[in-house]
Amino acid sequence: MTPRKIEVIALDDFPFISPGDDLASIILERSHAAGLHDGDILVIAQKIISKAENRYRNLSEINPSTEAIKLAAKTEKSPSLVELILQESAEIVRHRPGLIIARHRLGYVLANAGIDASNVGRTREHVLLLPEDPNKTCRELLQAFSNACGASLGIIINDSVGRAWRRGTTSIALGSAGFPALLDLREDPDLDRRPLKVSMVGLADELASAASLVQGQGNEGRPVVIIKGYDPFNFEVPETELTRPENEDLFR
Amino acid sequence: MTPRKIEVIALDDFPFISPGDDLASIILERSHAAGLHDGDILVIAQKIISKAENRYRNLSEINPSTEAIKLAAKTEKSPSLVELILQESAEIVRHRPGLIIARHRLGYVLANAGIDASNVGRTREHVLLLPEDPNKTCRELLQAFSNACGASLGIIINDSVGRAWRRGTTSIALGSAGFPALLDLREDPDLDRRPLKVSMVGLADELASAASLVQGQGNEGRPVVIIKGYDPFNFEVPETELTRPENEDLFR
Repeated sequence: MTPRKIEVIALDDFPFISPGDDLASIILERSHAAGLHDGDILVIAQKIISKAENRYRNLSEINPSTEAIKLAAKTEKSPSLVELILQESAEIVRHRPGLIIARHRLGYVLANAGIDASNVGRTREHVLLLPEDPNKTCRELLQAFSNACGASLGIIINDSVGRAWRRGTTSIALGSAGFPALLDLREDPDLDRRPLKVSMVGLADELASAASLVQGQGNEGRPVVIIKGYDPFNFEVPETELTRPENEDLFR
Repeated sequence: MTPRKIEVIALDDFPFISPGDDLASIILERSHAAGLHDGDILVIAQKIISKAENRYRNLSEINPSTEAIKLAAKTEKSPSLVELILQESAEIVRHRPGLIIARHRLGYVLANAGIDASNVGRTREHVLLLPEDPNKTCRELLQAFSNACGASLGIIINDSVGRAWRRGTTSIALGSAGFPALLDLREDPDLDRRPLKVSMVGLADELASAASLVQGQGNEGRPVVIIKGYDPFNFEVPETELTRPENEDLFR
């Protein structure tokens, strides 16, 4: 069932993306060399989705609330940026000088609610929010690719995030479509009532990390990756949300 | 610098590993088909390292302490298993019925201190501890491979672990050698004093996750993976520990 070999290929010469660009067409055009076939998974960096969806905000146009001004003082961050973090968040999980970890309104727990304040293009006053609804964007891209080339693809929007107990970022799937984001391997306990150690695999997150290895970290201009050979459509499991619900969270 | 394409290939027909087996020889023999060349990264599942190092423990031979008996009652787990968890741990981070999250003595935060109680072979009373010192094992394997085939390789021992805010496991590197476990991309703040969003990449963990995609979850018998094309030896950064030190931990 699990494939023996996969290939992870970044699209070369990907153009700079601007608000309103037709990403599906641009990706289709650039993927001719690698080809797009049934079972291929397209992994697309969050940054170009946010740019295409014009998720830019100009910090000089933001009016920070009293709450934002207070938190900005505690964290030594710009009040306007903190205002945007609060607007994008359901909850501030932790903070200290230089750091705000927030639960984004879509459930992800990440620094600055995922707001990108470096190398986003435009002016120095501009920041880039996460896409409005990554799962919806994935479904729309899937439909566009299906219409254009007929292949059964998987789509992931990925982003690099920090972790509670590990140094370094790894990439996760902000959204996905076309394949099971989680592999449900849970089984009945064995005779000794021992549960399986590995019961649910964060498949979309592992694919996101694999793609990140060839995307590079921004300046390489390789935001789109094709993963060939995985073919997760063999798995007959339901697509599930990867974000852990609050009632399962032991770390607040 | 970042590669454009990588291949992730599982070794087929890998034998069952028993205590004392010479893993380096077995892996070298099985990797002839794929070949081992400078820059290749070998990713080896924790379970076969633990088996080769005879990290089996027999629960029926464990005498649980008073502390273990108390925690076992609270978590509805076997007192003998909880005793081993306590012995392997520096700290119990969280617990509830059915779940113990511990900081392993080597720093990893994971369920049951990484003790594997399912499908470990031997009898139903046997569990498998994590390797004694995964980084040391990686260095020894690296030396053995270097002696045998002369190639400059990277080595990772990987394992699937749960996460605080995400459902599903992803694979992390319990140990590594021969290449930088972390990519340090930190730069001076830009003119606007904005830090880079992604500053340190958990390279070994992303490689571990990529390998996991072809290892499968146990029964496939594919514990060893070769990643070709990444060639991380181009990066002139120091190897760093991936485990986040306690003084950086905001989630206790």
